[in-house]
Amino acid sequence: MLDIGDLIVVMELAGVFVFGLSGAMLAVRRRLDMFGVLVLAGAAALAGGVARDLLIGAVPPLALSNTNLLAVALASGIVAFFAHGALERIGKPVMVLDAIGLGLFSVASCDKALGAGLGPLPAMLIGVLSAIGGGALRDILVAEVPRVLREEIYAVAALLGAAIVVLGDRLHLPDAPVFVTGAVAAFLLRVVSVWRNWHAPRAPGS
Amino acid sequence: MLDIGDLIVVMELAGVFVFGLSGAMLAVRRRLDMFGVLVLAGAAALAGGVARDLLIGAVPPLALSNTNLLAVALASGIVAFFAHGALERIGKPVMVLDAIGLGLFSVASCDKALGAGLGPLPAMLIGVLSAIGGGALRDILVAEVPRVLREEIYAVAALLGAAIVVLGDRLHLPDAPVFVTGAVAAFLLRVVSVWRNWHAPRAPGS
Amino acid sequence: MLDIGDLIVVMELAGVFVFGLSGAMLAVRRRLDMFGVLVLAGAAALAGGVARDLLIGAVPPLALSNTNLLAVALASGIVAFFAHGALERIGKPVMVLDAIGLGLFSVASCDKALGAGLGPLPAMLIGVLSAIGGGALRDILVAEVPRVLREEIYAVAALLGAAIVVLGDRLHLPDAPVFVTGAVAAFLLRVVSVWRNWHAPRAPGS
Repeated sequence: MLDIGDLIVVMELAGVFVFGLSGAMLAVRRRLDMFGVLVLAGAAALAGGVARDLLIGAVPPLALSNTNLLAVALASGIVAFFAHGALERIGKPVMVLDAIGLGLFSVASCDKALGAGLGPLPAMLIGVLSAIGGGALRDILVAEVPRVLREEIYAVAALLGAAIVVLGDRLHLPDAPVFVTGAVAAFLLRVVSVWRNWHAPRAPGS
Repeated sequence: MLDIGDLIVVMELAGVFVFGLSGAMLAVRRRLDMFGVLVLAGAAALAGGVARDLLIGAVPPLALSNTNLLAVALASGIVAFFAHGALERIGKPVMVLDAIGLGLFSVASCDKALGAGLGPLPAMLIGVLSAIGGGALRDILVAEVPRVLREEIYAVAALLGAAIVVLGDRLHLPDAPVFVTGAVAAFLLRVVSVWRNWHAPRAPGS
Repeated sequence: MLDIGDLIVVMELAGVFVFGLSGAMLAVRRRLDMFGVLVLAGAAALAGGVARDLLIGAVPPLALSNTNLLAVALASGIVAFFAHGALERIGKPVMVLDAIGLGLFSVASCDKALGAGLGPLPAMLIGVLSAIGGGALRDILVAEVPRVLREEIYAVAALLGAAIVVLGDRLHLPDAPVFVTGAVAAFLLRVVSVWRNWHAPRAPGS
């Protein structure tokens, strides 16, 4: 049977993979060469987790000390390099991959922060920062305003995933269904908001 | 009577508020939606203090562990969202708010670094970095060259504030007047340099 | 005779100086004023080492606690401010200086990470991150896509330098020749790739 520690590890690895794909797809679109694709995949895949680990004082960060994370990040770059054509056909691939990573990372990082002894609010913030960090660095590196600022529902979707983890922790619910619910809820809120073209209000008179 | 620990806390909270306003005003000008306004307010308000805390090894950073800082950052975003019209009428509001934050943060962070046992020069550097960090991230996030590079007198104003704190510490002067003097001096140097249009020299023959 | 600890210190100081020059030259080209030149010199010179020290948990970072590093970074800014004309005449000065810094930093930081007890792969990664970090921040600050993404052979040159350090450590070879070989190999791979106009492959069909 799947151990709960394994589940979090699998979610983090899956998040690394999809964020890595999103970075690599963007790099291919910008016609970067193979090494540029790998660097942008690595930055998108690993920066959020590195930020989380620095903020909770877990040094060296998991992304540097655990070979699996690095291998998965490199693999995502290689897959996108060769299969970007197929990936492009699934429609809005950077957005969809990014949304999956958002859900996975907000849950896995919020849980890790709770495990490091942080309170509910700091743990939620670290979940959100970790989920938006990789994508923000990815966009800044190619001189784009990050998605988290341009898009309507983004950080708030990560916040929903992290809030579900904190709520489950408070109510002592079993971890596995809570984690899956949090990740799926964050993903769905993000994707449905794009699909239905939801708008958050702009400042009155701006 | 006001305790000196309280004074530093009040200065940091005030710095968070004005930097948050500066970020939110910039976000409103760029026509970001409500969530984008809150994210940019939070980034401008909290990034300098987070950088300081990481550099002195105080993890988790105060911005994540102290609910007041986060509440003040959110409040600044909400205030600017609804009152940006009134704020715009005060003239160059982003510059003025940014200058107040610069003075407050250079003083509060330099004092915190001294308290963590750092020497005078590292403490001054941390004061400067903390004061320019939030504004630099704010500008980078909307793909602008940061103010600290574009403007004539900026980092040097933060350095003045931090230097006054170090000098006061060395001479064992009472904290409260030193802190106020440092913050006001940094603010005045920055604002007067804009108002009088002071120019720092450019490289000969450039 | 030169002590090996001295050699690493000298390599780090030399790396700080050339990265600082590269930042200051870029700032002069962008017609930034004297303070902007010093800030960009400092960012390019010190950011890579600060990132390394945060990642291995060495706080406060050497760049803040060691006055020599800061003095050298400031000196690089002042030299470039007054002598940029002469430096420009050596041809592609930002690229050449950047390549020297890349080699020096990948070696010095990889060795420091090994000394902090990290394994070979994390140590290599920290060498690469530290070598590309200062230049990446320098380019982001002036709103350019970083060299590490635009240029064909860049991170891979830093990786070569770090790999030579790890290999030498594994084979218990004497440090001094290993360090020099690593730095020179990284520099040469970078410069020759520019000079011969080597291209890394782009994604098929992109």
